[in-house]
Amino acid sequence: MRRTSLASATQMLARRLDELARVTDQPGATTRTFLSPAMRRANTLVGGWMRAAGLAVTEDRVGNLVGRTAGRGKTLLLGSHLDTVGDAGRFDGTLGVLLPLAALEVLRQEGTVLPFAVEVLGFAEEEGVRFSSAYLGSKGYTGLLKASDLALKDPEGVSVAEVLRAYNGKALPLPRPAHRPSDLLGYVEVHIEQGPVLEAEGLAAGVVSAIAGQTRAKVTLTGQAGHAGTTPMGLRKDALAAAAEFILAAESAAQGHGPLVATVGRIAAHPGAANVIPGRVELTLDVRHPVDARRKAAFARIRRAGRAIAGRRGVRFALEVTQDNGAVACSRPLSALLAKSVKAQQGRSRSLPSGAGHDAVILSALTPVTMLFVRCRGGLSHHPDEFVHPRDLGAALAIMVDFLTRLAATLA
Amino acid sequence: MRRTSLASATQMLARRLDELARVTDQPGATTRTFLSPAMRRANTLVGGWMRAAGLAVTEDRVGNLVGRTAGRGKTLLLGSHLDTVGDAGRFDGTLGVLLPLAALEVLRQEGTVLPFAVEVLGFAEEEGVRFSSAYLGSKGYTGLLKASDLALKDPEGVSVAEVLRAYNGKALPLPRPAHRPSDLLGYVEVHIEQGPVLEAEGLAAGVVSAIAGQTRAKVTLTGQAGHAGTTPMGLRKDALAAAAEFILAAESAAQGHGPLVATVGRIAAHPGAANVIPGRVELTLDVRHPVDARRKAAFARIRRAGRAIAGRRGVRFALEVTQDNGAVACSRPLSALLAKSVKAQQGRSRSLPSGAGHDAVILSALTPVTMLFVRCRGGLSHHPDEFVHPRDLGAALAIMVDFLTRLAATLA
Repeated sequence: MRRTSLASATQMLARRLDELARVTDQPGATTRTFLSPAMRRANTLVGGWMRAAGLAVTEDRVGNLVGRTAGRGKTLLLGSHLDTVGDAGRFDGTLGVLLPLAALEVLRQEGTVLPFAVEVLGFAEEEGVRFSSAYLGSKGYTGLLKASDLALKDPEGVSVAEVLRAYNGKALPLPRPAHRPSDLLGYVEVHIEQGPVLEAEGLAAGVVSAIAGQTRAKVTLTGQAGHAGTTPMGLRKDALAAAAEFILAAESAAQGHGPLVATVGRIAAHPGAANVIPGRVELTLDVRHPVDARRKAAFARIRRAGRAIAGRRGVRFALEVTQDNGAVACSRPLSALLAKSVKAQQGRSRSLPSGAGHDAVILSALTPVTMLFVRCRGGLSHHPDEFVHPRDLGAALAIMVDFLTRLAATLA
Repeated sequence: MRRTSLASATQMLARRLDELARVTDQPGATTRTFLSPAMRRANTLVGGWMRAAGLAVTEDRVGNLVGRTAGRGKTLLLGSHLDTVGDAGRFDGTLGVLLPLAALEVLRQEGTVLPFAVEVLGFAEEEGVRFSSAYLGSKGYTGLLKASDLALKDPEGVSVAEVLRAYNGKALPLPRPAHRPSDLLGYVEVHIEQGPVLEAEGLAAGVVSAIAGQTRAKVTLTGQAGHAGTTPMGLRKDALAAAAEFILAAESAAQGHGPLVATVGRIAAHPGAANVIPGRVELTLDVRHPVDARRKAAFARIRRAGRAIAGRRGVRFALEVTQDNGAVACSRPLSALLAKSVKAQQGRSRSLPSGAGHDAVILSALTPVTMLFVRCRGGLSHHPDEFVHPRDLGAALAIMVDFLTRLAATLA
């Protein structure tokens, strides 16, 4: 019986993902930003589905959509975000809202009553598109929104405070946390992996062990510009050759160190003419690891390598840290329980870190968190071609239903 | 006596270089482009100095300034260009026109009569600034100007043909060579080195052995863009890391191979975001060597290395040759004679290739050529800080006077 209801719930989930993708501020693409007209329509649409599933639906004062079951006892939070990047895919964020809703519907059809309340959360802002600052939704929900966040302005010069005033009809104080930690069982977020690990291993889903911490830096290498024809190799201080060595040093410092990643994504060489030896190169460095100490050690290793390379070449090396975020570890008990459900579904579980940030980072300030990653084709995300196979949707839905059942059993 | 006249001629040369630098189309900087108002004033100024030195002065139909001695027999050509890049220095080109003129004045004061004629040439265009095409002056002088050159347009849409028509008062056929090769002794060009070799060896001047051939290419490396946080190192196809390896391969292929130089001067990584693994990189490759076979072998070696690197990394490698010019060897007899004069002046001579192109490349189609390179501070050129020490001006002038005397002796 569960199998039949899972199959129809999966079809419904797929249909809803498609329908939600058509709710957009940008005709012909999927684009929804914080409290935009399309976001309001998305909340109305998803809110309707929540009500149809028997949930009590509210919107908090930052536009987060909250659907709550009538269950008693502590509350389990399940959710993700409903906003998107520009020209987005159908799954990033939305899957983590609509899949738990579908799971609750499966249990309801079965007549299963959970011994705890569930809130399905559709956060209003995670991507950081409109105000160049991420997590405005989950920060509002957890009471972490600050006055400085309210002062942020969008490209049209409209502030977060003004947007919220219009939304609420009047200025309201900063929101307080939606729950006391003692009232919560935890937060579980379902999200596409946005990476290639599950696909490479042939798995539909995996459990996130931790969300990586991240150090970003701007590196400047300053050598000596010169004529490409008249400056012998031995007399050069080529900033781009030094940068090339640095890029390879960063790559090799990360290789073979498990989940450690190091990336140079942006580079500019000056003056940038085919017949001039580059005198100055600027590049970005992004280092991530789910264990802060490992990330910091790797970053220090790469910086030392950069200094040594530059020193050997008579080039000046400058590094400015532009971002430094600690890792968030997932809850061991919640992850272990989720892993059981994953194993029951696909034979084995896979624990993997998340290199990208998620609402779970913010929710971890309020309650233990874990995440279920779902395979996406080619690891592609933030693109209209973002794709999760219907079989994987079904597998993830079955895992969530199983997880809720197991959690109920542990509390019985 | 020669020492005294050399000293005063050097002072005059330095003053003239300063005065000529103030003849500009761009107030506050030195900028003179093909047949611009400043170029006409420059020709008038330098033509006056030529006349004062007893030369017969003409302008050919492309605006080259020609000052000819009354000497009999074959003709020796001495010259360089009077146009400049934007915001140029005082020496690039001008030195090769004014220094021979000063040398002729020293000989005249001494009462030395040369057994050959000399033409001092101030070419109207070498830098390729106005029409993005170099050597229009020397091509006109040697009869190498083509109909396709006349069709070139400047940024205002004015063609070379239109500029020449205005200059000559009417449309004239393409100029023919100024001389029959059998009437010429050769062409000697004095030029600042625009590189650091002479400075590094503590020498005022050196003799150019050859003007390097040059291969330029555009290289595209295509990997796979991906999320910098979620794509493990082992699953990446990072186009920038591949490019870094290629840059170092090009550098190392050139190192230790004498005058061989290889330069990557321009690079662009796409999409170029700090948190995205670059999926595509475009870069330029510039390879030069005074011996064509060596240049071609080096270029092939670098291309092979690029293919191997890309293959190992699962990245696509594409290379498009955008320019391929052969080397020009300097005349052995002329260079040997010039080297004697250099050795007489500074104790030893130094033979060095020119990595940059010069009017001598074009003149070599008409007559044997050689070049005298003069030390410039820091190898700096195409910049207002371009600098030749007055002592080096004096040394170069003495070398030219000595060379003309020696050449006269060989013909006596």
